[in-house]
Amino acid sequence: MQTLIIVAHPQLAESSTQQFLRRGAELVAATWHPLTQNFTIAAEQSQLQAAQRIIWQFPLYWYSAPAMLKAWQDQVLTSKFAIQQQALAGKELGLVVTTNTPARDYQSGAAEQFTFAELLRPYQALANKSGLHWLPPFIVHQFSYQTDIQQQQLLIAYQQYLTLAQPATFAERQQWFEQRLQQMIAQAPAAQRTQLELMQNELINKRDDLAELRWTVEQMREADD
Amino acid sequence: MQTLIIVAHPQLAESSTQQFLRRGAELVAATWHPLTQNFTIAAEQSQLQAAQRIIWQFPLYWYSAPAMLKAWQDQVLTSKFAIQQQALAGKELGLVVTTNTPARDYQSGAAEQFTFAELLRPYQALANKSGLHWLPPFIVHQFSYQTDIQQQQLLIAYQQYLTLAQPATFAERQQWFEQRLQQMIAQAPAAQRTQLELMQNELINKRDDLAELRWTVEQMREADD
Repeated sequence: MQTLIIVAHPQLAESSTQQFLRRGAELVAATWHPLTQNFTIAAEQSQLQAAQRIIWQFPLYWYSAPAMLKAWQDQVLTSKFAIQQQALAGKELGLVVTTNTPARDYQSGAAEQFTFAELLRPYQALANKSGLHWLPPFIVHQFSYQTDIQQQQLLIAYQQYLTLAQPATFAERQQWFEQRLQQMIAQAPAAQRTQLELMQNELINKRDDLAELRWTVEQMREADD
Repeated sequence: MQTLIIVAHPQLAESSTQQFLRRGAELVAATWHPLTQNFTIAAEQSQLQAAQRIIWQFPLYWYSAPAMLKAWQDQVLTSKFAIQQQALAGKELGLVVTTNTPARDYQSGAAEQFTFAELLRPYQALANKSGLHWLPPFIVHQFSYQTDIQQQQLLIAYQQYLTLAQPATFAERQQWFEQRLQQMIAQAPAAQRTQLELMQNELINKRDDLAELRWTVEQMREADD
């Protein structure tokens, strides 16, 4: 899976959220492509064609991406390229959107009035028109208010968003995590290895407990029918 | 009513639709303000504050405005100005959007999948946040395919959109038209005046017929109850 992350942030170097996410992108070997004012249309188009999953990552400015992404869209995604030739058809389009507003504000009657599904319609319409498969958007609310543990969980969810088939099931996400842990153990120095192996055992036990619990619930449901 | 039309079109001089609409804007003395790459934030903010009705007028590029409008929004509508100070609260925001796609394509299941109401949510959310009163958007579909008469009707509807309280009733739109005709008669040379006065009589007679017809319908409804 070749994932291309197009990052549209006017002050990228100063954004701690983006720097944090960048580490996650590097861990899964996704291409990190920050937009600038200057780009070559042909080069951008080739890069898009080489990718399987395209991510537009940006802070929400006035309920859409910063102008630099729109300028890039208007110029790179020409009618000929994206619509007539359907050059991107069959690829996936995902959005990673950061906002300082809490999730509860995005609903009818709340402060922001509209849901993210509604606000991101123009991007979904673009995906439809270009034959891109639209992924469920990945929204990061109030990153700076999150605890260390929440941020680590976010980093894992982000890596999974970049690499796993979407939407990913619980089992797929767990399997992904176990594989990553196995890699870490293989690369870890001997002193840490024992501790990591203990974690791994714990995780596998929990998975077995969970499978057993699910089976019990299913049995109870069948008995009810 | 001071109406400010902010026109965002990258090739404004070549757009026959925009040149046509411009004549309508001039007839009702609305301010025609084409955006360029260079603007002064303070000057733009003052101009907004002087207006009562603000119009963003643009061709639809990838289901929203061309990047030049977003760049202007991101820079001119600062959080301080538009949100904390609520500098635009109580004013009106209208959109005039041109597209080469027919109206029937904008619905679920049709080619574009979404309605204009859905696609323009980010602008509506901006209006909510800034205390702007959101006007029903004015959408121009396939201008170049319209007949001369359709284009003249569009020009009248556009002028009414710029000046009348929105949404305008049928009676208000008719009254507006009669007033415009009265002005034309006063300014016309004697040779044309008779013809225009005949048109005016015809129009007033039609209005009286219409009023009588409405009264009859009301009476019938009352009899039914």
